[in-house]
Amino acid sequence: MTDTLHPALLPNGLSDGLPPRAEREADVVDGLMAFVRAFGYRRVKPPLIEFEDGLLTGAGGALVRDTFRVMDPVSQRMMGVRPDFTVQIGRIATTRLRHDPRPLRLCYAGQVLRVRGTQLRPERQFTQVGAELIGADGPAAEAEVVVLAAEALEAVGVVDATIDLNLPTLLGVLCEAHAVPDAVRAALRPAVDHKDVAAVREAAAETPALGALLVALIQATGPAREALAEIAALDLPAEAAARVAALGALVDRVEVAHPGLTLTVDALESRGFEYYTGVGFSVFARGARGELARGGRYRAGPEDRGEPAAGFTLMMDAVLDAIPEVEATRRVLAPLDHDRAAAARLRQDGWVVVQALDETADPAAEARRLGCDSVLGAAGPEALASA
Amino acid sequence: MTDTLHPALLPNGLSDGLPPRAEREADVVDGLMAFVRAFGYRRVKPPLIEFEDGLLTGAGGALVRDTFRVMDPVSQRMMGVRPDFTVQIGRIATTRLRHDPRPLRLCYAGQVLRVRGTQLRPERQFTQVGAELIGADGPAAEAEVVVLAAEALEAVGVVDATIDLNLPTLLGVLCEAHAVPDAVRAALRPAVDHKDVAAVREAAAETPALGALLVALIQATGPAREALAEIAALDLPAEAAARVAALGALVDRVEVAHPGLTLTVDALESRGFEYYTGVGFSVFARGARGELARGGRYRAGPEDRGEPAAGFTLMMDAVLDAIPEVEATRRVLAPLDHDRAAAARLRQDGWVVVQALDETADPAAEARRLGCDSVLGAAGPEALASA
Repeated sequence: MTDTLHPALLPNGLSDGLPPRAEREADVVDGLMAFVRAFGYRRVKPPLIEFEDGLLTGAGGALVRDTFRVMDPVSQRMMGVRPDFTVQIGRIATTRLRHDPRPLRLCYAGQVLRVRGTQLRPERQFTQVGAELIGADGPAAEAEVVVLAAEALEAVGVVDATIDLNLPTLLGVLCEAHAVPDAVRAALRPAVDHKDVAAVREAAAETPALGALLVALIQATGPAREALAEIAALDLPAEAAARVAALGALVDRVEVAHPGLTLTVDALESRGFEYYTGVGFSVFARGARGELARGGRYRAGPEDRGEPAAGFTLMMDAVLDAIPEVEATRRVLAPLDHDRAAAARLRQDGWVVVQALDETADPAAEARRLGCDSVLGAAGPEALASA
Repeated sequence: MTDTLHPALLPNGLSDGLPPRAEREADVVDGLMAFVRAFGYRRVKPPLIEFEDGLLTGAGGALVRDTFRVMDPVSQRMMGVRPDFTVQIGRIATTRLRHDPRPLRLCYAGQVLRVRGTQLRPERQFTQVGAELIGADGPAAEAEVVVLAAEALEAVGVVDATIDLNLPTLLGVLCEAHAVPDAVRAALRPAVDHKDVAAVREAAAETPALGALLVALIQATGPAREALAEIAALDLPAEAAARVAALGALVDRVEVAHPGLTLTVDALESRGFEYYTGVGFSVFARGARGELARGGRYRAGPEDRGEPAAGFTLMMDAVLDAIPEVEATRRVLAPLDHDRAAAARLRQDGWVVVQALDETADPAAEARRLGCDSVLGAAGPEALASA
């Protein structure tokens, strides 16, 4: 230790959750977990740290640089603090719960840590809530998780959610069909991600048909039905057309399961997350910074024993920004020698009853000082006169 | 990486929480938090990691060797993963919430990590739930936290809880009054902790009056009233007598607030935790390994701006061992094209409704395979015939 830090100082991207937001976050997490649990998703709770070999294999590889590492003095091996839950859930599904019947529905809620924040999200600790449907292929499984994410958010008060559906692997499929060299493909990814039509045309100068197709796909975004109709009119290679058809089948199922959900399609969008093997999706809502949820189709577990899976993760910071504040709980001050049975009944009815720790000459003033709106009298809470 | 680990292998002392225990733990944590919240304790959520300077000062010093450390690449300073919440709560109370009215009531729930487990508790990750009452001195504050710990545990199903009250600083007070050298004092601590009467007499051979007093105190343990009466008959130095009197005042208040609570006194017991500045207490229950809760009187915050505080921490592993299993939720399988409004109503009534992802010729067999006890028909759940 060289110099002393101010005791209130926290590392960049880490913060104290204070009242009332910390309480509200916990309530919303509870509401989300109760919702997915009613669909048969069962809670698992992987450890905060585990051997890095397991944490960073397969899909976890993308987060290698984001993972805090610590030496385990017991085993003398390196451990990592989880940067995400999905890899841990895949490990649990394919090892400890490998004999459980499929499809296996699991859910989780907890903290993840990242070594560095991003420009959009400087935070390095996140509360994540998620659900994973493991061991099932096909659009019914994908529709279940898309609708579940939307309905869970609706259940906790998110209004006007929009679900953006993507095919993160589509660019790769098209590049393969047009046999473009790796260098071209590498140049196309950022151009497509930035929807930079000029850069796309330039990178695909040697294969103008591909360039034109990519530009058309970039422009064919918006409400799902319209975007899909525009894409259907394009001359796609067979494999790409099959992926788009699967996306169309998913839209059909989602519309049956939850009519009126706002679905958009942005086929080439990958959000830098090429971890998904089929459809990907993000949920947005008015008032929220960035995505509320991200999900899609992927392979769960280690490569040699992976299983088809679909799931989503909710980002609680964004979720909280998207839902209205709740009304404050009513708080009553109970004098030092109050009727404890009466206080217990009030608490069961949803009141907060704060106990005075000494005699006071002016209970109303003391109640006001402590943020209470009433004092517990013989006949129940007595509202304070407005100050 | 030298050799490959089995993917299911976790570091010693770390484990996956699986269904149904992970779900049950979350429910019990929610129940405990709702209970303390109704007494005016407001939730805070400190970060999992922070600068080690803050985490390990003052009361945190006792946990220096138990704390995982990581380098922060952003600030180039060392950070620690919290081994406990109390120091963080003290920091929040005395910095960010220093202008909030006193007494300040805060609560928390979350994970802590330790570098090494103990023989009694090999685990290195714990779920802790706790409440802290900051800025209030005196027996009313102590009685509030003792009774709150007991009643919160009762609310989540713990029966037959026993609260053991201690004076962790009493040995030091007695040694001071008898002016024993540091070496004798150092020899007395383990002898007293092990209730090893012969070793106590031997270590106090130069001050036999102290030895006799310590032996008498070791023997004066048991139900609170009886133990206090036995201790009152001893010839204690003034400062020690004052501490015992404060303990007696606390017992009086607890008995008024919650008649029938089982209180024991073991005055010299410290459980290796000399962090408390006044009374300490532990909660035990039948069927649970070790303490369910530990709490007491301490100083919150950094030494130069500390405040009197009293609080407790609940150890969720032990709490779960002490409460009965809950009944399993009813699970119903809903066919692929089921009535979604009917399913939503069932979920609101507490059912788990699992959606089939494809058509099945034998829904009953499929339901059984998935652990459901019924199939959703036109008129509602149809119970399966016993297999």
